[in-house]
Amino acid sequence: MPAADRPFMPGYGVLPASKGSGLIAWAEAERRLTVAHDYWCATVRPDGAPHVMPVWGVWLEGRLWFSSGLRSRKARNLAADPRCTLTTDDARNPVVLEGAAARHTDQPSIVAFVAAVNDKYDG
Amino acid sequence: MPAADRPFMPGYGVLPASKGSGLIAWAEAERRLTVAHDYWCATVRPDGAPHVMPVWGVWLEGRLWFSSGLRSRKARNLAADPRCTLTTDDARNPVVLEGAAARHTDQPSIVAFVAAVNDKYDG
Repeated sequence: MPAADRPFMPGYGVLPASKGSGLIAWAEAERRLTVAHDYWCATVRPDGAPHVMPVWGVWLEGRLWFSSGLRSRKARNLAADPRCTLTTDDARNPVVLEGAAARHTDQPSIVAFVAAVNDKYDG
Repeated sequence: MPAADRPFMPGYGVLPASKGSGLIAWAEAERRLTVAHDYWCATVRPDGAPHVMPVWGVWLEGRLWFSSGLRSRKARNLAADPRCTLTTDDARNPVVLEGAAARHTDQPSIVAFVAAVNDKYDG
């Protein structure tokens, strides 16, 4: 569980973490990540331009899992540079994840992912 | 007005533009860009990692206008590399703009932008 801190947003009136109140708890961030229907997935093209597409996904064990066709732009971007930034679909109460994607092809991961996707989107 | 074409999405069952029907008209893309309350703005950090934040904005004369604090991450990213990708806030009916940001500091642009922002968000 990451420590809650405020974003560094100079000029936007955000107080430092030691002042004021209203830090968003990680549990609330996880709630938003869980209930989001869609996520925006930003990657970087080999030529350095940003690429964004919506994806379906599931929040499982502290990670956001999504699938992709291997020939898709995002998959090819991630194969060259795994750094990606994912957001929820509620821009008024946003959660933005910055990290790196890892490709999972093992059967247990795929089975767990498919089950979670089916639970979420077929329910 | 850009020519309507289908996105290149191998593996996702998208027909070529010459087949099938249902190409989204530019007018519909502009409608979505106009009515969106928020936009996700993706830029690239100097170290090459993608950065995404929500912004308010207005669609004016074929361009998406938004403001930013100059010290913000996105403004600093754009100062180093103006390429950015902006999306609407409806991931189920998405519009994704790929382009380059230009900084406008002239008074007519600022006056027009502020008036449009006030119309949109204070109404």
